[in-house]
Amino acid sequence: MSVEHNLLNYLIAPNPKAARLTRVVQGVDHDGRATDISVVEERPLTIFLNGQEIVTAMTIGDYPEYLAVGFLRNQGMLADDETVKGVEFDEELETVVVRTDGQTSYEDKLKKKTRTSGCAVGTVFGDMMEGLEGVTLPDLPVKTSELYALASLINRTPSLYLEAGAIHGTVLCQGDRPLVYMEDVGRHNAVDKIAGWMHMEGVPAHDKLLYTTGRLTSEMVIKTAMMGIPALASRSGFTAWGVEIAREVGLTLIGRMRGKRFMCLSGDARLIRDADPDSVAEEGRKHRRKGAGP
Amino acid sequence: MSVEHNLLNYLIAPNPKAARLTRVVQGVDHDGRATDISVVEERPLTIFLNGQEIVTAMTIGDYPEYLAVGFLRNQGMLADDETVKGVEFDEELETVVVRTDGQTSYEDKLKKKTRTSGCAVGTVFGDMMEGLEGVTLPDLPVKTSELYALASLINRTPSLYLEAGAIHGTVLCQGDRPLVYMEDVGRHNAVDKIAGWMHMEGVPAHDKLLYTTGRLTSEMVIKTAMMGIPALASRSGFTAWGVEIAREVGLTLIGRMRGKRFMCLSGDARLIRDADPDSVAEEGRKHRRKGAGP
Repeated sequence: MSVEHNLLNYLIAPNPKAARLTRVVQGVDHDGRATDISVVEERPLTIFLNGQEIVTAMTIGDYPEYLAVGFLRNQGMLADDETVKGVEFDEELETVVVRTDGQTSYEDKLKKKTRTSGCAVGTVFGDMMEGLEGVTLPDLPVKTSELYALASLINRTPSLYLEAGAIHGTVLCQGDRPLVYMEDVGRHNAVDKIAGWMHMEGVPAHDKLLYTTGRLTSEMVIKTAMMGIPALASRSGFTAWGVEIAREVGLTLIGRMRGKRFMCLSGDARLIRDADPDSVAEEGRKHRRKGAGP
Repeated sequence: MSVEHNLLNYLIAPNPKAARLTRVVQGVDHDGRATDISVVEERPLTIFLNGQEIVTAMTIGDYPEYLAVGFLRNQGMLADDETVKGVEFDEELETVVVRTDGQTSYEDKLKKKTRTSGCAVGTVFGDMMEGLEGVTLPDLPVKTSELYALASLINRTPSLYLEAGAIHGTVLCQGDRPLVYMEDVGRHNAVDKIAGWMHMEGVPAHDKLLYTTGRLTSEMVIKTAMMGIPALASRSGFTAWGVEIAREVGLTLIGRMRGKRFMCLSGDARLIRDADPDSVAEEGRKHRRKGAGP
């Protein structure tokens, strides 16, 4: 299948030509030549839950509604049984307000945030670990042929990364099909936008795999598990705690995916090795995406 | 000069063999072979200022005292004229307490944090922008020969990155000499550890350059400017806001440094182009460090 054909299959794909997401700036290169380059935007977005200001995130600025809902979901501030009545984005004020039906537990949560929020890894950690208690993810078989197909397709998809760099991507996948490809300056924002899309569109998680360009830290593993997604794959490397949590909750964890190579550090028994690694082409130079780790 | 000779010149270099910083975990590779790999640790560290709990950071765990002091400095919670009376790290409790002489402004700051802290980029953003008002960095000439020498030496320095990946590095440099090379799971922690070292050792900033493996986001640019360091260089790419702030405060900003190539997006007039780019060797494959951007 051609890239073009497969791209038609995305429900949401990156829009690298969107005017609001990148800016051309003039610089000087190593030879002293004035050169125009494209760089990604980064702007504040303040998220409110009903009347309460929750957080200010730095984001490229697309899909603010999904980002807000996904952030609140992944922080445990928006329960399964709570109905989102409305989400209002105000571009000028750089705010997004999520309105719910019932009484939410945000006041308790906010108190906890004051005490434990780190800003050091982008999460309210106390809350997130708490949300994981008792989580066991469904057994999803993952075919290596699907992994290879996804990686190849995602790498070749036109993206802000290929246009301007300095950005992370996260892709929600089902089988060998990438469904929703979000990018953002912080990888947690890209994941939150996917969580928001899933919640607002009522998309089930049990048969999905999440692909990320970023590292498999405890934060990424926890977010994926909180979303109920049973498999997480990345080009980048692992942290010890990320591996530990993945094993505890039954998350299939695959990292260092480059060409035919990968490492599975959790859930190898759920891998179906139906592809011959030696038949997988090496990555082309242009599409060799870099991650913060070998 | 040999690498070995230059390594003797570091005041602090990475210690990739330190037992506490990495762990060997067993996984399965693409060919189905059981394989041991080394992954970095990631652990919580709760920072106190006198009696007040400030934040919980996720860190690899080395130099907790420098991390705590640097974090407080970069958040504007520890003023120039405040004396650090003591810093106490408790490994078991995973806490570090910074004690100061006078009354600090942390209560005000903490109130602001509750309102604006994002955890979305790892900073208390409201405070940081405020701290930048009126900052103009000193004019530091930067020789391209020094840039090339630093990049080559840093890439070849034994590090946790080369050992286990999934980690960011930041290096404080003077002329062509890297002085202090810190690594951490979050690049902001690596910078904070350098800020803490500078504050506790009384090291001046006006003649230094900061090299980072991470992206040149607004957060990195603000932290560097807050530290009074007039030049920032990286292998990775830029965000638009990072460039804008660098130009406002007079920070020399160099990104996308790979082999002979780089882009200067702020302060090109301060570059002294004394090296012929064509004489610079391409990076060896083993030492080609990846960053989140082209």
